[in-house]
Amino acid sequence: MRALVWDGSELRYVDDVPVPKRREDSALVRVHLAGICSTDLQILQGYMGFRGILGHEFVGRVVDGPDGWKDQRVVGEINFACGRCETCAAGRPRHCPTRTVLGIQGADGAFADLVRIPLANLHRVPDEVSEQTAVFAEPLAAAYEAEHQTRDLAGGRSTVLGAGKLGLLVAQVLAARGDDVEVVCRSARTRKRVDALGLAPVDLRSAGRGRDLVVEATGAVEGLTVALSLVRPLGTIVAKSTVAAHHSLDLSPVVIHEISLIGSRCGPFEPALEALRTRAVSVAPLLEEIYPLERGVEALEAASRPGALKLLLEADA
Amino acid sequence: MRALVWDGSELRYVDDVPVPKRREDSALVRVHLAGICSTDLQILQGYMGFRGILGHEFVGRVVDGPDGWKDQRVVGEINFACGRCETCAAGRPRHCPTRTVLGIQGADGAFADLVRIPLANLHRVPDEVSEQTAVFAEPLAAAYEAEHQTRDLAGGRSTVLGAGKLGLLVAQVLAARGDDVEVVCRSARTRKRVDALGLAPVDLRSAGRGRDLVVEATGAVEGLTVALSLVRPLGTIVAKSTVAAHHSLDLSPVVIHEISLIGSRCGPFEPALEALRTRAVSVAPLLEEIYPLERGVEALEAASRPGALKLLLEADA
Repeated sequence: MRALVWDGSELRYVDDVPVPKRREDSALVRVHLAGICSTDLQILQGYMGFRGILGHEFVGRVVDGPDGWKDQRVVGEINFACGRCETCAAGRPRHCPTRTVLGIQGADGAFADLVRIPLANLHRVPDEVSEQTAVFAEPLAAAYEAEHQTRDLAGGRSTVLGAGKLGLLVAQVLAARGDDVEVVCRSARTRKRVDALGLAPVDLRSAGRGRDLVVEATGAVEGLTVALSLVRPLGTIVAKSTVAAHHSLDLSPVVIHEISLIGSRCGPFEPALEALRTRAVSVAPLLEEIYPLERGVEALEAASRPGALKLLLEADA
Repeated sequence: MRALVWDGSELRYVDDVPVPKRREDSALVRVHLAGICSTDLQILQGYMGFRGILGHEFVGRVVDGPDGWKDQRVVGEINFACGRCETCAAGRPRHCPTRTVLGIQGADGAFADLVRIPLANLHRVPDEVSEQTAVFAEPLAAAYEAEHQTRDLAGGRSTVLGAGKLGLLVAQVLAARGDDVEVVCRSARTRKRVDALGLAPVDLRSAGRGRDLVVEATGAVEGLTVALSLVRPLGTIVAKSTVAAHHSLDLSPVVIHEISLIGSRCGPFEPALEALRTRAVSVAPLLEEIYPLERGVEALEAASRPGALKLLLEADA
């Protein structure tokens, strides 16, 4: 089969990768569309030391699996848990210490014709949800994680730092639950983007201070310092960026103002799929371009341009 | 009157400080005992740029105030709020942006014969509570803040880093609510101290991993890195130390493991006074020595020895 393979020094399009073997508790999925995420670009910079087929956002159809799953249109959660350890038993499988992670850690990903996904990780895609919409389920689930972690602040004054793909999803999710949301933008172009989604763009200078919630989704090291300047005492900062660098951060304001700083990664697929079905969240404006899988290397280059929105790879045209 | 005065370069015992004038919304309190806190020692290192009479932990008796308060035995909350701003109106007076703070920021403190305290900050001391017990109300309130901020984790596995004064109060408060508490100790001496309080001492090597809650009360820069190594995914770290230094901290584990890092400062006096009344928390083992106010400079030196427990100043013998 065809796939985009990262060997630690070069990303290559390969057309004779062996087809993965299905295991009893998994399904083989024929990938239709796959999304390129900032994490993929970080892996090409050395993040997680991953080697193998990249890609963890996808929509596809089960071509080999148990009867109930055969021919189902699916998306998949990316953390493959053991299901038996203390962490899994405690209901935290996304944090299973021996997990593999699709296209990120120890498990080949979805920039390929076929991908193997544990049955426990599969979600059926409702008929009303198009392919180009369903492929946003994984990043939208990550946005819902920030929402679930800050339920006590629903309806408050929220600020999202970063008007990239993830920031725009988080901002929509917070607005949908009734928050008064500001999105901090750096350029006229991102400002327009935010405006088009019915959200409030602001530049940093005019951004509201004393916010109940600030979500840091810039991907930049300075993001947390900016977040600390905007949040109110006893407020919450959600950190969405896994910046691969040491932060030199003055944490005394965190203690003095009793800030909660919450790390946030992957999230629940159910509310994400429901929001896509009911169109509570718009993803079409976030889509920049679709490349055929063969042009995947070029697509990942394009995705690394500053300000790039979502680029998709089409495996099964 | 007599007082310990910090002028930014020298701490001096002065016996002719003018008596503070009572204002309409405040009381004059004759100080009986005052406690020396690590924050006092940090102020002598330049923290907060404070100038004036030090001291924010005290018990005393109202000598000038409205009828209801006259002759009452009292302790006092240290954040003097405006009572009119948005933050105060939102029920967060301890974070009032224009607040002064007793002996820390813009308000003369309690290492003196007399101290002025706003009526809104006074709490009556129950008759059953001795002077040497009541003087712990302020630091114990700070320990209860950590408890209030982590109510969702009550009954879980908690670790307290640091077996100093604050750490031992926090550990007792968490044990009282049913947490399975470990206190990380560095020496045989602190180990014994922890043991005497009926708590479980551990050294760092044998400390449990995957803890639900880790309270960082070491006062050392490395504390947070240690805390990150002990807390479980989706767990909580409470940061109690206002270390006056930039942390160079790898925050990617916070995001990957979705840790909540919560700053924690001053807390509610009501549960603290109630715990002192019912003896749910023991403070006598934390008391090291009582110095007369005249020997205050010497007492602050003694308090800065590593491993020192609570030193008190007696103004009104």
